[in-house]
Amino acid sequence: MAGSIFGKLFRVTTWGESHGKGLGVVIDGCPAGLPLSEEDIQLYLNRRKPGQSVFSTPRKEDDAVEILSGVFEGRTTGTPISMVVFNKTQRSQDYSEIASYYRPGHADFTFDEKYGFRDYRGGGRSSGRETIGRVAAGAVAAKLLKSLGVELLTYTKSIGPYEINYETFNREEIFRNSLYMPDAAAAEKAGEFIMQKRKEHDSVGGMAECIVTGMPTGIGEPVFDKLNANLAKAIVSIGAVKGFEMGDGMAVAKAIGSVNNDAFRMKDGRPEKVTNHSGGTLGGMSDGSPIILRAAFKPTPSILSEQQTVNKSGEDITVSIKGRHDPIIVPRAVVVVEAMVALTIADAILENMTARLDKIVEFYKN
Amino acid sequence: MAGSIFGKLFRVTTWGESHGKGLGVVIDGCPAGLPLSEEDIQLYLNRRKPGQSVFSTPRKEDDAVEILSGVFEGRTTGTPISMVVFNKTQRSQDYSEIASYYRPGHADFTFDEKYGFRDYRGGGRSSGRETIGRVAAGAVAAKLLKSLGVELLTYTKSIGPYEINYETFNREEIFRNSLYMPDAAAAEKAGEFIMQKRKEHDSVGGMAECIVTGMPTGIGEPVFDKLNANLAKAIVSIGAVKGFEMGDGMAVAKAIGSVNNDAFRMKDGRPEKVTNHSGGTLGGMSDGSPIILRAAFKPTPSILSEQQTVNKSGEDITVSIKGRHDPIIVPRAVVVVEAMVALTIADAILENMTARLDKIVEFYKN
Amino acid sequence: MAGSIFGKLFRVTTWGESHGKGLGVVIDGCPAGLPLSEEDIQLYLNRRKPGQSVFSTPRKEDDAVEILSGVFEGRTTGTPISMVVFNKTQRSQDYSEIASYYRPGHADFTFDEKYGFRDYRGGGRSSGRETIGRVAAGAVAAKLLKSLGVELLTYTKSIGPYEINYETFNREEIFRNSLYMPDAAAAEKAGEFIMQKRKEHDSVGGMAECIVTGMPTGIGEPVFDKLNANLAKAIVSIGAVKGFEMGDGMAVAKAIGSVNNDAFRMKDGRPEKVTNHSGGTLGGMSDGSPIILRAAFKPTPSILSEQQTVNKSGEDITVSIKGRHDPIIVPRAVVVVEAMVALTIADAILENMTARLDKIVEFYKN
Amino acid sequence: MAGSIFGKLFRVTTWGESHGKGLGVVIDGCPAGLPLSEEDIQLYLNRRKPGQSVFSTPRKEDDAVEILSGVFEGRTTGTPISMVVFNKTQRSQDYSEIASYYRPGHADFTFDEKYGFRDYRGGGRSSGRETIGRVAAGAVAAKLLKSLGVELLTYTKSIGPYEINYETFNREEIFRNSLYMPDAAAAEKAGEFIMQKRKEHDSVGGMAECIVTGMPTGIGEPVFDKLNANLAKAIVSIGAVKGFEMGDGMAVAKAIGSVNNDAFRMKDGRPEKVTNHSGGTLGGMSDGSPIILRAAFKPTPSILSEQQTVNKSGEDITVSIKGRHDPIIVPRAVVVVEAMVALTIADAILENMTARLDKIVEFYKN
Repeated sequence: MAGSIFGKLFRVTTWGESHGKGLGVVIDGCPAGLPLSEEDIQLYLNRRKPGQSVFSTPRKEDDAVEILSGVFEGRTTGTPISMVVFNKTQRSQDYSEIASYYRPGHADFTFDEKYGFRDYRGGGRSSGRETIGRVAAGAVAAKLLKSLGVELLTYTKSIGPYEINYETFNREEIFRNSLYMPDAAAAEKAGEFIMQKRKEHDSVGGMAECIVTGMPTGIGEPVFDKLNANLAKAIVSIGAVKGFEMGDGMAVAKAIGSVNNDAFRMKDGRPEKVTNHSGGTLGGMSDGSPIILRAAFKPTPSILSEQQTVNKSGEDITVSIKGRHDPIIVPRAVVVVEAMVALTIADAILENMTARLDKIVEFYKN
Repeated sequence: MAGSIFGKLFRVTTWGESHGKGLGVVIDGCPAGLPLSEEDIQLYLNRRKPGQSVFSTPRKEDDAVEILSGVFEGRTTGTPISMVVFNKTQRSQDYSEIASYYRPGHADFTFDEKYGFRDYRGGGRSSGRETIGRVAAGAVAAKLLKSLGVELLTYTKSIGPYEINYETFNREEIFRNSLYMPDAAAAEKAGEFIMQKRKEHDSVGGMAECIVTGMPTGIGEPVFDKLNANLAKAIVSIGAVKGFEMGDGMAVAKAIGSVNNDAFRMKDGRPEKVTNHSGGTLGGMSDGSPIILRAAFKPTPSILSEQQTVNKSGEDITVSIKGRHDPIIVPRAVVVVEAMVALTIADAILENMTARLDKIVEFYKN
Repeated sequence: MAGSIFGKLFRVTTWGESHGKGLGVVIDGCPAGLPLSEEDIQLYLNRRKPGQSVFSTPRKEDDAVEILSGVFEGRTTGTPISMVVFNKTQRSQDYSEIASYYRPGHADFTFDEKYGFRDYRGGGRSSGRETIGRVAAGAVAAKLLKSLGVELLTYTKSIGPYEINYETFNREEIFRNSLYMPDAAAAEKAGEFIMQKRKEHDSVGGMAECIVTGMPTGIGEPVFDKLNANLAKAIVSIGAVKGFEMGDGMAVAKAIGSVNNDAFRMKDGRPEKVTNHSGGTLGGMSDGSPIILRAAFKPTPSILSEQQTVNKSGEDITVSIKGRHDPIIVPRAVVVVEAMVALTIADAILENMTARLDKIVEFYKN
Repeated sequence: MAGSIFGKLFRVTTWGESHGKGLGVVIDGCPAGLPLSEEDIQLYLNRRKPGQSVFSTPRKEDDAVEILSGVFEGRTTGTPISMVVFNKTQRSQDYSEIASYYRPGHADFTFDEKYGFRDYRGGGRSSGRETIGRVAAGAVAAKLLKSLGVELLTYTKSIGPYEINYETFNREEIFRNSLYMPDAAAAEKAGEFIMQKRKEHDSVGGMAECIVTGMPTGIGEPVFDKLNANLAKAIVSIGAVKGFEMGDGMAVAKAIGSVNNDAFRMKDGRPEKVTNHSGGTLGGMSDGSPIILRAAFKPTPSILSEQQTVNKSGEDITVSIKGRHDPIIVPRAVVVVEAMVALTIADAILENMTARLDKIVEFYKN
């Protein structure tokens, strides 16, 4: 499993299983001098904790982060930042049944195929808890970005058929409702929808959206390491994401050029796009307008409804997944999307420093 | 521009500008022993050449590939494979006007912002010709995959409002119409739509789809290097792609779990998915069903219609982009999508060989 | 500090400071199915602990390793293996003086130049304790190699002017004397030499040697990633190493071709080198003979003798480094050399699996 | 052969075989705005051409470089720089005999073991001509470094027993004698020695040395990516190098700390090392003093003397390697050493820009 390292200069390595001793992350390449405390991280981690609302699982988790290295007298030193969340309760016995068959929509089958066996306790490495390391690292990246004037806003755009109304978009509302929707009315309807589906022993999908403002221009590398390409990888690497869009996204397939192109006009002595169909990049580099992206999350695969599957003995069976599972993934995943975006942009901003000789010469003169 | 290298084990480095001396690619990490000729590559490159139909630009390009290294007596040797397509005609004078302003929907502005200046001739590095290196390398990857039983099928799924009908899906039809659509009726209507929009000095968007069959299970690495995540990066790195989907894609946001989950049943002694909403991966690893992905391409940004933009002197101006431009990107991009998918999967298949100790021990025993 | 990740497929990320909460490592890419226990790691870590002999510092350290992830029911699962050694005692007050000046031969000055400040407690990240993560990961790599028949033997070759006698080379003796020398007589003289230099408030240098047997042929990649090149990086990345040799090493500069070339003869139906001046590689790939390499370690820079240096206020000062410091680095570094060699070779052995198409086809047929 | 890519930000990919169509390199990550012409590259390539003196092979090679991309109006654009040297003469027939057996000291055997077969013409990829790509890229890196005030001086330090005298070190002399020695007297004696050994159908080894001045402090990353570690890899990746040293090198093994440590004193308001036993780095980062390193090259393995080896049919045979071979590798390799050092340092200088938040904030303010 050589897939747990992300990034080129701001590199994160995550580790840990749902029911192992803990989960964590090491950041290698965080610049020195960033004020950083465990509270900075905890605020992010709290956004992914369950039990925050009636819509998420009542499991009691206490994900307290510890910084083990890389911070001295309140600032990052430039050395690797190791962070860990120890698992408090490891009830392996709950999962003995799961070990014997392949849950539909889960990675049980593919893990067995690839590695020959798996840590089946709570999903092991493919559990949603895997994102703890991502979020902890993303909190550091977001703080780094903030010091450069780059800010991220992430929220639930839709749940099932219920979508936010952009005309009444309310930024403050995001943290007021447990679905992280910037629209109280949509959140209420979505909430009822979730409750109804849960009663039907089913689950629902939804969409998250992230907007990044304050971006310098020219961030991202043309060709393969386009900012949008790296964002696509970052977002689709989150479990349950099946679609990714920038700007107008899939809709561009039905658009015409005269409408889809964003005109430029001078504003305050700088070229500025009049519209933002592109979602903030041109040719893979940031164009000065906000980065806008969306991720489509599938419904929670663990449902109480009966499902057909096979067991490890090669028999067709019918199962019903018990346990405390959220009927919707999106709200808790909003902060994971934000974390992955922060990691990707922080990395690109560092790499961009090496693009021009005149700026390099100036850098080393000082 | 440190973004022109793709892959981890099967690594490709592309180079070249639209109006420079040529364009090419070096593959480092292609296994030894693959039969390979220039004709193998040329067949792929021909699929991206213009002038194939009334819908694409009448520019005359003769993209003849030369293999400069890495092949000996008809087989790859394991050493880097360098391939080049020399540019035949370099009419830089055509582009002198473009140098002075920023074309809407193009990378002119962001290139200048990042690097301080740009090779403006024909779009330089951000021209569609940049994909020559991708396609040449993709042809090698596809041949490698074929020797492992993995096959790729790529085509135009929709153009503007016209979409293929899966009930009359005709594989042979793909290469019969110049739009690469597996549906003659849809192709005809789409063709008329393109002609109409061209008359209106406009352009249209569309969607490409790729299906990969014969995949071994377990390909892809969990967490960040999920097969779907790497495919997302690969596809979104293609210029003009604004959206990416696997399986049911964006639609999962409105789905419910009991439908979205793919049930397993035993078939010929192996677990097999009954449906394929997931698009061929579970937990980031191939699950034995076909890989299915889609890319949404924006309309060609170069249009004859008047557009508002700014010039390098900081003045608001109105422009009309002359020149011979396709009114639709998708058909010529179909092979680019196939190439990027082939590169991504070949790389993942190589990396997967190191996943299990028992197989490694067996490998070295032989 | 983006320099704490090593390897391409078997990738390790180390973290931790001398006086922080702990030190550790995450391995991403260890194959699944390797039996692994904390005892396997501890045996390696014990070889780098001080207090083992009169020649090493009497500091009491208890470096007990914990495996936090990646192992399930006694075997590696293929997921990242996170290992940590918590620091028991953190006496930061001991180091307050060091914070004010730059110790000769240490990284104090360069850390301040690069990062603007440093964690000065016990040398922070540039302490010898940094190697804990290397050794823990190396223990896993060594166990992986053992399952493939590859074995490592590492020892002290010389201390000051005292060198081992190869004619009386005694493998068992290595672990009998505290200097890890395979020659009891040389160890005794070297021990006396160290005692004498310590009395003079001075320190001494020495050389470590590593021999790897059971290597498959063809391991290592031609050109930049030659096995010897990657070994050179691995070894020179160990603090205090100033020279690296393979086979005849520096002496080849004075050799003649007719002697330096290793002749081949058939043996048991296979070509075999008659001599091993090359040290086990030809053209960067293993040639079937033992890998032989050496590392020259400088004397411990921390000495009680008076030295001239400058302080952070920009004044010339004279210092005497107090504290409990080994007068010789080599014996404790022997296991670090072994760890780095194991990591490098394990990585190369994994990458080599992708070199030939016929073997790949066979791999996926099974 | 996934080993032909070098570097992290300034990344070079080399390709080409001795008797293929040509050899070349692609640089991905060279900053935009560097004035660059083919002449800049040619001057470097000329230093590795044979036929420059009586001591090197009389083969006539005309290695004329072409820049195919990445340069526009005389300056690098930030896009990949592709450079090629086409082979003029491809006399494959000369090498038919070599195909049948394994030359001692060459990579014939290991290539066959790894890949199953090899391009045997002139050594294929393991020929000395492989370094063409390194040198072409190194010329670009050296020009980049020069614009930052960093200069490289590389020369032959010794040939067989004849070593330069540092007291009469003459920088201008390096390019006056065909052995690239900064000491006319040593060069004369070394020349006679080479002539004598050639008459005896033998070859000789030697040592190259490189000094880098004008280094900023703090370049290099602690732990694995130490500047010295990356230099070690760079140098040992050159064919025929068997030993690598920084500063006092192997001699530190016999040194004592009170002598080996470099004292600091204030000079012109900055701390400066009084001596330079360390060779320019402390803790893996540049310390402001010159970088000093050495490489030991083995004697040319191709000799006319009879040697024992085996053929591909598994028979013991005796061979005598005919053809025009230099009896000494070092002089032509001097520029290869310089190229690899330039590549390594350029890369490290770019990466170092991301080390400190305050400098990053300042960079993006401008």
